[in-house]
Amino acid sequence: MSINLVTRGVKVDLSNSAGQTGADASWGSAPTIGILGGGQLARMLCLAGIPMGIKFRILERELDCPAADVCPDVRQGDWNDPDEVAKFGEGCDVVTMESEFVEASALHAASGHGITILPSPQCMAIVQDKFLQKSTLRDGGVAVPRFLDAPDEGAILRAGADLGWPLVLKTRKLGYDGKGNTTVHGPDDVRRAWEALGAGRIPLFCEEFVPFSRELAVMITTATSGTSVVYPLVETIQKDHICHEVLCPAKVEDRLSESAVKLARQAVKSVDGIGTFGVEMFETADGQILVNELAPRVHNSGHYTIEACETSQFENHIRAVLGLEPGSARLIDESAVMINILGETDGCGWPAGLSSALKSPVAHVHWYGKSRSRKGRKMGHITATGPDMEDCRSRARRLASLIYRD
Amino acid sequence: MSINLVTRGVKVDLSNSAGQTGADASWGSAPTIGILGGGQLARMLCLAGIPMGIKFRILERELDCPAADVCPDVRQGDWNDPDEVAKFGEGCDVVTMESEFVEASALHAASGHGITILPSPQCMAIVQDKFLQKSTLRDGGVAVPRFLDAPDEGAILRAGADLGWPLVLKTRKLGYDGKGNTTVHGPDDVRRAWEALGAGRIPLFCEEFVPFSRELAVMITTATSGTSVVYPLVETIQKDHICHEVLCPAKVEDRLSESAVKLARQAVKSVDGIGTFGVEMFETADGQILVNELAPRVHNSGHYTIEACETSQFENHIRAVLGLEPGSARLIDESAVMINILGETDGCGWPAGLSSALKSPVAHVHWYGKSRSRKGRKMGHITATGPDMEDCRSRARRLASLIYRD
Repeated sequence: MSINLVTRGVKVDLSNSAGQTGADASWGSAPTIGILGGGQLARMLCLAGIPMGIKFRILERELDCPAADVCPDVRQGDWNDPDEVAKFGEGCDVVTMESEFVEASALHAASGHGITILPSPQCMAIVQDKFLQKSTLRDGGVAVPRFLDAPDEGAILRAGADLGWPLVLKTRKLGYDGKGNTTVHGPDDVRRAWEALGAGRIPLFCEEFVPFSRELAVMITTATSGTSVVYPLVETIQKDHICHEVLCPAKVEDRLSESAVKLARQAVKSVDGIGTFGVEMFETADGQILVNELAPRVHNSGHYTIEACETSQFENHIRAVLGLEPGSARLIDESAVMINILGETDGCGWPAGLSSALKSPVAHVHWYGKSRSRKGRKMGHITATGPDMEDCRSRARRLASLIYRD
Repeated sequence: MSINLVTRGVKVDLSNSAGQTGADASWGSAPTIGILGGGQLARMLCLAGIPMGIKFRILERELDCPAADVCPDVRQGDWNDPDEVAKFGEGCDVVTMESEFVEASALHAASGHGITILPSPQCMAIVQDKFLQKSTLRDGGVAVPRFLDAPDEGAILRAGADLGWPLVLKTRKLGYDGKGNTTVHGPDDVRRAWEALGAGRIPLFCEEFVPFSRELAVMITTATSGTSVVYPLVETIQKDHICHEVLCPAKVEDRLSESAVKLARQAVKSVDGIGTFGVEMFETADGQILVNELAPRVHNSGHYTIEACETSQFENHIRAVLGLEPGSARLIDESAVMINILGETDGCGWPAGLSSALKSPVAHVHWYGKSRSRKGRKMGHITATGPDMEDCRSRARRLASLIYRD
């Protein structure tokens, strides 16, 4: 398979997608957005679009999902089934998704039935295959860590010789939050890593190990007209490979911040991304910025935009996929801190300390309405905004610590 | 009927209502708020509460109502029927309302079945009868226009001699947006006015005609703990007796602003109001402030708080009726302008120019999702915030003018 050929082959024709929902968007009744997935991202998309009079429809495997609290039209089904996606999309002005894991082939098929899908199936095909995504970014001039294909154990050994040890072995698809990758510490570790990731049953690739000093992220929304708005650069702090805190704005030199914004624009442009995208980046010890990966959707590192920015990442995604112009991404207050609340044990979806956290208005508590808590499950988040970052952090942490105190 | 006795008789026992949903509010699962009414105010209450994980239930005559876009649990029924309200309230942690017209007797009856209702039925009984409301405010030391009971034509003639001509004849209940009142120009006009307002079939009262220079308003939220937060003083500009524009903050001297805030606190305290209340005021030609009337609910003159304040009037109402502390009512930006969008003709609920208004992100368009437009019907509103009031006004007006341009 020639990567370059594939990359060129799947370029989305922007003029086409813009033609359906773009500059002349004009509806005789309220437009309907279909969302594949009914989790917290779909829930927050609905909460951002309903005030503008937009209608929503959700496709999810379970009717009891976070989006069901806010959307009366939840349909049960599998968003990887092309027929179900096509049927679901009938009557929707546009179909979008809350997950990068929706099979691009299902999107392609639905698109063939005249359903408008944004980001486009072509874009999703590139982004959901991390090897293809990185190839496309690299070909688009975006600085990324070095990487190589890993079709067999021998390729991993050769990659180690080329990229140096340790290296990171990753699944091309479906990896997230630290799942689907393993660090290979040297030639003797190749067999273990190869078997840990399926021994060739799923496609893998190798990436150089980047000893980053910080992880940064930028949200960016691109309209069908081509206009894009870039949110402030944030620092993301992970705990066990899961986003734990987001600090906005990241405290970096102007030079780095400008470079990050430029990279983010280039990255999304190189995959012809429409809508809101998250761009995750590494700041290396020597002060360079590399793009780690793209999320072709609203993203956890942009939740702070609900309170902190003039237009949230959610409203801007809605705007973009409907062919409306994006609103300002300006930070209203001077700083914002977002903290994720992860489930601590299997249990009820309303932990004992949540009422106390809600009672105290020192920061905004968002709770996703999941019926059950599980260890590590994203149950909600807290955002504090204000003139002083450390004060925001301490207010948000105070509430976070209340929720699972019992 | 002795007004004073009645007023004293219906004092709500704050310690009781606080006991049910107050300081120690702690739920084992997501609390449910029942709302009587499913219009735009209920819709915006849901949009403010769902992010915090709160569940909602709506009682409305028609299932196809603005709140139905955002609340999957809309129940069809008459909120003036005590049995229906009691049945609706079963399983709700608290029942609140979007309208001051819910019959207090139905609330009393439901309350007798152990349903927690806030604002309390006693408070609603006072506020929904404007004669009783004004008597209570006056007895509480709040400056109000002079008024007198009008049980018959003779009483109106005597009121004219006492208060001076012209005077305003008003229905004690159910008046709004210029409906339910008429100006009586002199003794010869009494017969016409008397007959215009039902010739004694519904209770009436007379009020002195106040030649005000401006109309002002304040939103205030009072928690069951007694804590209250007061939003900035705004100027409201009416067109055909309907709120047309709201300018925040009102450009008044500090002395007037302080006096307005003090009056608003006193007014809500005198009716033992819990939740968010609107206090409508007159600024007289000689620089005094009189309270015109109370709205025992979230109010059109507080819609600007969604974008302009740290915590919206809607979130704070939710917080108050659940026994949570209210969040800050601080104005985030320097000024805000809200413009109501009223239906121009009978027709489709999505006017031709709405898509263009949504396309342009210079101000926030809120659309209530009503299926049909009618002349004068509140269809949506627009809010612009920013450092300069005139710039906000011009941006909001630009979008407003687009919506019904065709």
